[in-house]
Amino acid sequence: MSTFKTIGVIGKRRDTRSGDTVRALCAQLHALKRTVLVEDSTAQHYRLKGTATATLAQIGQRCDLAVVVGGDGTLLEVGRSLAAKNVPLLGINEGRLGFMVDIKPEEMRETLAAILKGDYVRERRLMLSATIRRSRKTLGPFLAINDIVIRNQAAVRMLEFETWHGKQFISLHRADGIIVSSPTGSTAYALSGGGPVLHPALEALSLVPICPHTLSDRPIVVGCEQPVRIVLAGGEGTRAMCTADGQVNEDIVPGDVVEIRRARATLTLIHPSNHNFFHILRNKLHWGRGPVQR
Amino acid sequence: MSTFKTIGVIGKRRDTRSGDTVRALCAQLHALKRTVLVEDSTAQHYRLKGTATATLAQIGQRCDLAVVVGGDGTLLEVGRSLAAKNVPLLGINEGRLGFMVDIKPEEMRETLAAILKGDYVRERRLMLSATIRRSRKTLGPFLAINDIVIRNQAAVRMLEFETWHGKQFISLHRADGIIVSSPTGSTAYALSGGGPVLHPALEALSLVPICPHTLSDRPIVVGCEQPVRIVLAGGEGTRAMCTADGQVNEDIVPGDVVEIRRARATLTLIHPSNHNFFHILRNKLHWGRGPVQR
Amino acid sequence: MSTFKTIGVIGKRRDTRSGDTVRALCAQLHALKRTVLVEDSTAQHYRLKGTATATLAQIGQRCDLAVVVGGDGTLLEVGRSLAAKNVPLLGINEGRLGFMVDIKPEEMRETLAAILKGDYVRERRLMLSATIRRSRKTLGPFLAINDIVIRNQAAVRMLEFETWHGKQFISLHRADGIIVSSPTGSTAYALSGGGPVLHPALEALSLVPICPHTLSDRPIVVGCEQPVRIVLAGGEGTRAMCTADGQVNEDIVPGDVVEIRRARATLTLIHPSNHNFFHILRNKLHWGRGPVQR
Amino acid sequence: MSTFKTIGVIGKRRDTRSGDTVRALCAQLHALKRTVLVEDSTAQHYRLKGTATATLAQIGQRCDLAVVVGGDGTLLEVGRSLAAKNVPLLGINEGRLGFMVDIKPEEMRETLAAILKGDYVRERRLMLSATIRRSRKTLGPFLAINDIVIRNQAAVRMLEFETWHGKQFISLHRADGIIVSSPTGSTAYALSGGGPVLHPALEALSLVPICPHTLSDRPIVVGCEQPVRIVLAGGEGTRAMCTADGQVNEDIVPGDVVEIRRARATLTLIHPSNHNFFHILRNKLHWGRGPVQR
Repeated sequence: MSTFKTIGVIGKRRDTRSGDTVRALCAQLHALKRTVLVEDSTAQHYRLKGTATATLAQIGQRCDLAVVVGGDGTLLEVGRSLAAKNVPLLGINEGRLGFMVDIKPEEMRETLAAILKGDYVRERRLMLSATIRRSRKTLGPFLAINDIVIRNQAAVRMLEFETWHGKQFISLHRADGIIVSSPTGSTAYALSGGGPVLHPALEALSLVPICPHTLSDRPIVVGCEQPVRIVLAGGEGTRAMCTADGQVNEDIVPGDVVEIRRARATLTLIHPSNHNFFHILRNKLHWGRGPVQR
Repeated sequence: MSTFKTIGVIGKRRDTRSGDTVRALCAQLHALKRTVLVEDSTAQHYRLKGTATATLAQIGQRCDLAVVVGGDGTLLEVGRSLAAKNVPLLGINEGRLGFMVDIKPEEMRETLAAILKGDYVRERRLMLSATIRRSRKTLGPFLAINDIVIRNQAAVRMLEFETWHGKQFISLHRADGIIVSSPTGSTAYALSGGGPVLHPALEALSLVPICPHTLSDRPIVVGCEQPVRIVLAGGEGTRAMCTADGQVNEDIVPGDVVEIRRARATLTLIHPSNHNFFHILRNKLHWGRGPVQR
Repeated sequence: MSTFKTIGVIGKRRDTRSGDTVRALCAQLHALKRTVLVEDSTAQHYRLKGTATATLAQIGQRCDLAVVVGGDGTLLEVGRSLAAKNVPLLGINEGRLGFMVDIKPEEMRETLAAILKGDYVRERRLMLSATIRRSRKTLGPFLAINDIVIRNQAAVRMLEFETWHGKQFISLHRADGIIVSSPTGSTAYALSGGGPVLHPALEALSLVPICPHTLSDRPIVVGCEQPVRIVLAGGEGTRAMCTADGQVNEDIVPGDVVEIRRARATLTLIHPSNHNFFHILRNKLHWGRGPVQR
Repeated sequence: MSTFKTIGVIGKRRDTRSGDTVRALCAQLHALKRTVLVEDSTAQHYRLKGTATATLAQIGQRCDLAVVVGGDGTLLEVGRSLAAKNVPLLGINEGRLGFMVDIKPEEMRETLAAILKGDYVRERRLMLSATIRRSRKTLGPFLAINDIVIRNQAAVRMLEFETWHGKQFISLHRADGIIVSSPTGSTAYALSGGGPVLHPALEALSLVPICPHTLSDRPIVVGCEQPVRIVLAGGEGTRAMCTADGQVNEDIVPGDVVEIRRARATLTLIHPSNHNFFHILRNKLHWGRGPVQR
């Protein structure tokens, strides 16, 4: 089987350390007779020469694989950009093992060779799409891979907001905010807020209130066939922010309805064939022990 | 449409207060021309006369609806017994609103009349089935509606056990035990242990470690198409217990593998047509406020 | 014994409902031959006539008791203002029982009579004093009864900061912020953040990280004979806010050292002689059950 | 200054690895002209020859320092035994750094030399004393360094019990049990149960309910000048256990009153002079980062 013929390469834009990895990656892809398109700013940043370059949009149109060199944050950015085109992503991580960016540079050569021979796992992750309805106007949609977060502005101690699942009212909350997380995002900010880990294959969202006033206001996991809505309540002084993946911000005001549903697009990740979600989880959460030897 | 012709009636066995409710229930069912079978010990306990009686097994075979008068605990017992026959259950609660037993005696007359006219919601809840594998022998299967719990015996401070999801190793835990909970059980013991609320329609299980030694050992929600396995480790002194719904106990020893999968049987609950899971949740967790008035 | 001769009266400034309570209070105090000084804006707000008025500062100088009509929030404001003068405070609560404002209007007449006869409990609560050191300049001190909170500004997902206890380094945290709470504040925002309840008589502070990145970053309780210091780290984009009692805000930047120590001033609360901290706690946290009847 | 002339040596009884450490320790103490008394079973276990031996009781009477080779568990056992004699303890840990047993074997030679020259920190830790009152009889007192734990027996899902602080009723709980922890124990089982870390110098206890039914039933920290009492409620089937330091068990039944107060005895720990509680905490909780380099 012949896979992945045209391959985009995107590096972390604000980082100089990854230059060697990006160069080695391009060299290997060329050697394996792939068509390589390096994202413009990446090529410029690392002063790459002798390689074709392209915008992220062009990579979305022309590539059948995009390799991201960086951390989970870089992959979130690229993933949202390429979502509509459904280009599969492969992540190479400079630092500590990432949840999505799970190939180490020192294993890149071998792993990449295997993947290009067809030896890999393809994993689909659901994405979120949020709109903000305000009187007659609608903002968005905003895509998110991890989470949509509603938070108070710093000077405001507490928000008051309603949560709804489809047509069912869930609760009226008083809290610093709320995290609506995909399974992918459940190991990110939602975990810090006290939410559960959701297996990546689940078709579910978790709603995690941030510092809720009511102590029994606990994380809830719901299916994603129905939208979740957050209705901001509160008086004149209320100011809040709606954030996608911690990267895209939008101010919201009382009366605004933030509607979060499963996006049509999904994120496709390419993993080495020995990929194991729990292995990464153990590593990231310092569980660090294998099964008992028998 | 003509629904629910032969109806079983089961009362809480260790309670005398429910006599009036059971009697009023039978009277109403007779008046509505239903065939009524009162469970033997219920009939005896409340000294009911002039009504046909039956064993729980016979109710399972002959009835197309079983009405349980009692609390969620009674419904768990009856639900497991009737599971193989898939008789739908309707719960009438003497005390505070229950999660599954959601009709109050004072609303029984009206609600029941509506339900028997076909005005109701039918809800399916997944059930769990656990087996214990010990060398060449297998114990079980044990059915559970809420949860399968592995716990240390009181004199043993901590257990060591592995968790697996299908063929994937999750982690090696040191804890007082672990709760494997269905969505239905997520609002019971699992919630006390720090687990999330799972919407009843989710096809998922949550794994909630009890007082884990490692602080990052957090609740995990996984799909139920694959079994969860708990392998008890530890040395000679280790003694633990495997419990279904807090009602059925079995001792387990190091090396035992407790395998928990979705049961073939499902629990069918009949609710009034205005049933709302979140309404009950708000009531039970003292959230107690409706949406903002606009 | 003759107690409390000159009494200040302060009402919640943004509330019209308390007028009757304030008027009844003044009438009773006059009838009991006390000298009454109504705080200026309170007198104006409720259009009180025929009573002496004074600024809050004058109340601090001349009164030996200040009665606050409002909620815990009002008492926090007044308490910080009068702290240097150590005027004892008595709180009358219009709404739900407050932690500090613990007399209901319907019990005011009788309770106040008893207190003015000398039948009361005097309770001292420690207060916090925070300074912000920035290069050569020092901001503050800022007084707080409940808590000093360092929080990220909304658009910034996470702060990085160090904590110190006296000369001992505690940890480097990545979190939304941190709550440094007195025992009095332990039942307020710190509780929402996952902190413990501290008995009001403890001479201790709790440090409660808000949504910490590291799951084992747990609340710590330390003695208050040594200061706690928070050193804001992070890069250029970092913006944070330091807030006292959720009411007084000050922007802080990387490098700033927020030093929190026990204030010299203490808050003195006057309670009815049957006052019981746990009774209020049970009421506020909906525990709501007394001891078993025997 | 001449310190620590007669020194007891106690090894972990169920461990063979520590033999070399124990032998090296005795040799060093002899070389430094100290009188050494090796605990009987330790001498036998490691087949030590040419050294004086003594019972633990004799070590308590004759020694002015006891060196424990083992883990925190061993130190708990020895510490309770020697408490009445107030012999200071020094701990050498074979495995991972312990909270109380904080000298590594490879640093033993140098650290011990410094300590015997007078270069050390002496730290006092409060201990707990529990009695069980049952009708006319009183069991105990039971000493504890870490905690007194009341727990259900495995087959019983939930206990019902009251908590009292001095003469004040705290609450009626439904839970798996409760942990009453000293500051020393706050980093042990109480932490797994969701309790806060208490600085070792605090004169306070924490009450940590285990898997409480009521979600707002949160850890409470109280002063230790008044006793804490736990009164077991519940019906006939109730069976529970009261455990000191996870090592000493006693069955309890409904009506029993477990009274926990500060013990007269204190535990005295000898640490290297660079000892730092937070350093150990960071290490044990995997916080693992020092202050930002400036």
